[in-house]
Amino acid sequence: MIVVNKIRELNAIDNWVRHFTRAPHQWNVVHQSDAELVALPGTDRLLAITIDTVAEEIVTGLYREPFTMGWVAVMASLSDLAAVAADPLGLVVSVVLEPGRDDSFRTALAQGMAAACDAGGTFLLGGDTNTAISPSLTTCAIGIVSRRPVLNRVGCRPGDTVFLSGPAGAGSALALSRFLHSEGFPEGSYRPVARLNVRQTIRRFATACMDTSDGLLPTLDQLMRLNGMGFRITQDVAHILDRRALRLAVEADLPPWFMLAGPHGEFELVLTVPQGLTEHFMAEARSAGWEPVMTGTVTEEIGVKMAIDGRQCAVDTAGVRNLFDEVSGDISRYARGLAAMLVPEPEV
Amino acid sequence: MIVVNKIRELNAIDNWVRHFTRAPHQWNVVHQSDAELVALPGTDRLLAITIDTVAEEIVTGLYREPFTMGWVAVMASLSDLAAVAADPLGLVVSVVLEPGRDDSFRTALAQGMAAACDAGGTFLLGGDTNTAISPSLTTCAIGIVSRRPVLNRVGCRPGDTVFLSGPAGAGSALALSRFLHSEGFPEGSYRPVARLNVRQTIRRFATACMDTSDGLLPTLDQLMRLNGMGFRITQDVAHILDRRALRLAVEADLPPWFMLAGPHGEFELVLTVPQGLTEHFMAEARSAGWEPVMTGTVTEEIGVKMAIDGRQCAVDTAGVRNLFDEVSGDISRYARGLAAMLVPEPEV
Repeated sequence: MIVVNKIRELNAIDNWVRHFTRAPHQWNVVHQSDAELVALPGTDRLLAITIDTVAEEIVTGLYREPFTMGWVAVMASLSDLAAVAADPLGLVVSVVLEPGRDDSFRTALAQGMAAACDAGGTFLLGGDTNTAISPSLTTCAIGIVSRRPVLNRVGCRPGDTVFLSGPAGAGSALALSRFLHSEGFPEGSYRPVARLNVRQTIRRFATACMDTSDGLLPTLDQLMRLNGMGFRITQDVAHILDRRALRLAVEADLPPWFMLAGPHGEFELVLTVPQGLTEHFMAEARSAGWEPVMTGTVTEEIGVKMAIDGRQCAVDTAGVRNLFDEVSGDISRYARGLAAMLVPEPEV
Repeated sequence: MIVVNKIRELNAIDNWVRHFTRAPHQWNVVHQSDAELVALPGTDRLLAITIDTVAEEIVTGLYREPFTMGWVAVMASLSDLAAVAADPLGLVVSVVLEPGRDDSFRTALAQGMAAACDAGGTFLLGGDTNTAISPSLTTCAIGIVSRRPVLNRVGCRPGDTVFLSGPAGAGSALALSRFLHSEGFPEGSYRPVARLNVRQTIRRFATACMDTSDGLLPTLDQLMRLNGMGFRITQDVAHILDRRALRLAVEADLPPWFMLAGPHGEFELVLTVPQGLTEHFMAEARSAGWEPVMTGTVTEEIGVKMAIDGRQCAVDTAGVRNLFDEVSGDISRYARGLAAMLVPEPEV
């Protein structure tokens, strides 16, 4: 029973969207794609456009190093392009800083952006700078995609195999490390790379794709709502997780699956591959030097399930998505609230 | 004698740019164009991309109505597309608001954006929302331009006629009205419309183009630097100015030309037309229902000149551009400083 208006973030977006006329040349509807897709006149291709702002992560102190801020601001937009397997044309950036920021801060910020552009194989095309009381970094990335087929969040089928483009949980690990004042996951190790480099393989095999910028479970929740299907995580959580994230959870005596809850994610991709193509996909990926993480399967039954300590559980993914806002970002309450989001299935 | 590093804003931009590798497919160099221009693979056209943030205007109280904030945020980007005579494909927007903003504020903001999209004949494609201590609205607009010829800030020749797409000074009028606590230019009358509607005429006749988002004199200063030429404003300032801007200046006992100084502009276009085509251009514009404002002429000699009270004066446009920052936004000091920026030419 999918009730879209259970999700605060989706409500907020829908409240915006209702004021605007839909563009007739826009290919996707709201929520359907990580990047907006519009017909490119005179061609058989689409333009992919996305905008992302890094602000809360700076204000709350999650990011303290300007290099990280710049890096993530660029990767957030590039990751949306990666989720539609676009060939990037470049980015523009708007940098809003407090009046007092010195040159060394600006330099490190620019270096983070430049390094992220290099790592993503693309370029900064231009930008704008402004002054305000609190900082924010906004990037807009554009790319080109083929119309046949158009990859987006919708299109998976029951039985499809679910892959992660790489281990998940680095985003939660950074957040937990901050909360614990731990050096278990230093900020400098949070250097997510948008998965643009595997776009050719993804284009050939994926039926649906979305990035984990909000964490794996919120991503599966969104894919579930859009596709009207469910997900079963068949892999052990320990095998899905970034090793440092796993170690940090264990040290903090937290269930490892907490590291999949977001809301701070890591820009891996969740992609679904038809079961019959799974082996072929894995072989192609490996020959391209890429090791996707087999994660689970698409189910006809709606809902997200995973095995915890050998017991099959349903995850209240709507509850997970709303929780951080509901506890006003209080990490202790968040952790306590998460524990209640697992509902063990009756034993048969 | 053009010393580019005299301009604070240009220095700041150059300090950013030096950290980045230039995109090989980017058509324009830094400062050359209101919108970034990149080759669109597989076509003979260019993609125009621009990003703009409205933040300072909100924080300083220049804009108090959310409808205005949304309207201007959209028009700022569309105006950059208009300056390269692009066919718009749409916009994406990032809205950063303080936690306490209520629904009526959000609604009016969205309505301002939607109305501006309608007025510009284009569409919002998507966006992002965030929370921060101070608000900022960032828009990124994209469009398509022909490669032959590419219109940008560079390309005018001595003898070209300088036109404004419409009366200038509305931006300064709003700022002055705020400062005077006057109702002479209420916020609701500041509804600049990006000049996308005249792009077909501009494409055919203009040799260079730039918008007046920072005011007319800063725009002429920038065009002067980029083209290595000068400008003589031959028209009476009273004939260039928006009527309400002129009346406000007269009432405040300020020289009317102050309304051309910025830094808050109004999104008209400055364009240059070869002298031999001027009459043809005027006729075409009028038949399209558009009345461009004949403003002056391009001169071989570098510098910006205008006649004030019948006396030819040189304007220290670099001084004008830096002044607002140098007086830390103090309007009284700004007005006193402006008065010193006119250097009467020796009588012959």
